Amino acid sequence: MKQYLTVIVSLLIFGGSTCLAQTEQPAILEDFKPSTLNQPGQEYPQVNSQGYARFRITAPEARSVRVSLGGRGGTSLTQAADSAWTGTTAKPEDEGFHYYHLTVDGGKFNDPGALNFYGSTRWESGIEIPAHDQDFYALKDVPHGRVQQILFPSKSTSTCRRAFVYTPPDYDKDPAKRYPVLYLQHGWGEDETAWSNQGRANLIMDNLIAEGKIRPFLIVMTYGMTNEIKFGGLRNFDIKPFQTVLVEELIPYVDDHFRTLSDQPSRAMAGLSMGGMETRMITLANLDRFSHIGLFSGGSISLEDVNNTPGFKEKVKLVFVSFGSRELENRRSGRRGPFGGDPKENTDALKQEGINSVFYVSPNTAHEFLSWRRSLREFAPLLFRE
Amino acid sequence: MKQYLTVIVSLLIFGGSTCLAQTEQPAILEDFKPSTLNQPGQEYPQVNSQGYARFRITAPEARSVRVSLGGRGGTSLTQAADSAWTGTTAKPEDEGFHYYHLTVDGGKFNDPGALNFYGSTRWESGIEIPAHDQDFYALKDVPHGRVQQILFPSKSTSTCRRAFVYTPPDYDKDPAKRYPVLYLQHGWGEDETAWSNQGRANLIMDNLIAEGKIRPFLIVMTYGMTNEIKFGGLRNFDIKPFQTVLVEELIPYVDDHFRTLSDQPSRAMAGLSMGGMETRMITLANLDRFSHIGLFSGGSISLEDVNNTPGFKEKVKLVFVSFGSRELENRRSGRRGPFGGDPKENTDALKQEGINSVFYVSPNTAHEFLSWRRSLREFAPLLFRE
Repeated sequence: MKQYLTVIVSLLIFGGSTCLAQTEQPAILEDFKPSTLNQPGQEYPQVNSQGYARFRITAPEARSVRVSLGGRGGTSLTQAADSAWTGTTAKPEDEGFHYYHLTVDGGKFNDPGALNFYGSTRWESGIEIPAHDQDFYALKDVPHGRVQQILFPSKSTSTCRRAFVYTPPDYDKDPAKRYPVLYLQHGWGEDETAWSNQGRANLIMDNLIAEGKIRPFLIVMTYGMTNEIKFGGLRNFDIKPFQTVLVEELIPYVDDHFRTLSDQPSRAMAGLSMGGMETRMITLANLDRFSHIGLFSGGSISLEDVNNTPGFKEKVKLVFVSFGSRELENRRSGRRGPFGGDPKENTDALKQEGINSVFYVSPNTAHEFLSWRRSLREFAPLLFRE
Repeated sequence: MKQYLTVIVSLLIFGGSTCLAQTEQPAILEDFKPSTLNQPGQEYPQVNSQGYARFRITAPEARSVRVSLGGRGGTSLTQAADSAWTGTTAKPEDEGFHYYHLTVDGGKFNDPGALNFYGSTRWESGIEIPAHDQDFYALKDVPHGRVQQILFPSKSTSTCRRAFVYTPPDYDKDPAKRYPVLYLQHGWGEDETAWSNQGRANLIMDNLIAEGKIRPFLIVMTYGMTNEIKFGGLRNFDIKPFQTVLVEELIPYVDDHFRTLSDQPSRAMAGLSMGGMETRMITLANLDRFSHIGLFSGGSISLEDVNNTPGFKEKVKLVFVSFGSRELENRRSGRRGPFGGDPKENTDALKQEGINSVFYVSPNTAHEFLSWRRSLREFAPLLFRE
């Protein structure tokens, strides 16, 4: 089975027509345009059609300016005749969204030209390399749902907590209609803004709904780092504080304040990376509440998990597991996920047991948001189908 | 009348117990705490009980680091023994919210410790000096309304535009209930995020509603710089592009997608600074649509305006004009608003003509968000009262 995976991965990584895997870099095309994630009116950073990124930073008296993008060590900028610091990444970046920052004279700052996105427990600069399939998350002339900020009381943490709720375009048309709900979690260092800002979850949903590809549902996104995990602290991760917020506080609030279908078949949970880990822990411990499970770059569910979880086969309607192809490439070279075993093998094993189990690989992407945008696109049509 | 205003202003500026107008600065109290607008886990910037702000920036190899706060020219930081750049403003800042940025070796960057807010046509760092009356915009344990992001089609600009809609806590309780609407505009260089981010409009509303002080209504906030005004370009300002978006596109969309009361007595418009100017222009030209007018640090309406606008006395139920006291102090020393005449005199003249006209002065604040948070607090209870 592992050899099979190796073949699949090899095909994905080396069999495509992309130039990304070639060792010799092509000539850089001078068709650079401002990144779509620039602040209004800003010309830089720019990206070209090959995925190279170019930067221009004003700091005339600086000794050194570096950009964290462009491979290990990032890209050192050089001072041009007009005193601006400029430079282009040495290699093309993967398609999709990337976080980055500047290092100016040893200090970490954001690029004044770019919008900021919350990742790595701070607001970082973001850049978008146009993807060949960007249409599915584009802002189009279709009916749009809303992203609603809610503030819900949390007794367990003695705070008022924030979540965002996506409601589909037709939510306000029929006051009697009720909707299934997906609880969707961000990754380590991100927060409840991630899925609608860098993930574009609302636009992915609007487009899927306009194309008639999914049954409309709500998405609820809240902050999953309730227990203040420090980097590297995932080994000692205790799911209970966040599980309490999600299951005991947020779900009842949402069911009370939105027109939801609140039965188990109408509730799903998914998450990316650490959010996948949380999804796995919370759903396996709460199968009376969740019927559909999505793990995006966040481990998998093994047959052992199924056998250790009474009622799994009856209660779970979907197990969806996805990764970026470059993550699997890393895995092939020896690195393994923390959740026991190969994710594709695990998913196949569940399928052979009659469990509706789907494995998806995002081509030519790593542990990054284009993998997860695509995962949501693949996952959403499989939800709440009965 | 002008002498009367001078007396009022003098009382406001020099008659209070605040130390701000004294020439000798008090000793700086060492009770600094992280600003409430810091990024998660960040210790700096800090503020003390007197309103001084203290900064700490990591940039070991920098030649100079300056902060734009602290009076003209800002505050130069000095490099401490641990190589961090630190410094404290030379004077206390006004209570409330302030934008700022760093200048590192001649380049403009944001403070990595602070959250960012859109102002001056860019995302700037923000800092909050705790105000003695901050309770009215605090996040409290009361029922919370929502801030809903909508994307509405705009034929006149060939774009899909964004707005935020505040809905009160009881909006989803009774599907038959309809609500009046306030259209609320930001200032020059800001955008549709300003009133809920730096303005805290949703929390001000939640608190006023919890105290039973207002009749609940919706607030709609959209981007008002439709015609891409450059700084200094207000003299040539043409209201038509934005008026078309607001009146012909946004209002019908909101009335179609939310449970609004769409008659003229149930629709208000207000704005701060440039948004006040837009409010004045749009409401005077559309009195069949708006009944309540709020101008926050954005001019006033004169008797001449009333006489030139047929039906004004019958159609307008409220004219609310407000300023920060320090703005009036500047006015006293010779600077005048662009809208003809003294705002207090204009408001009094309207009152004498039997028009419901209110003038409010925010104590010890300038052209800044605490003036406008307080203006909303004073304005909201006066709306939709019949």
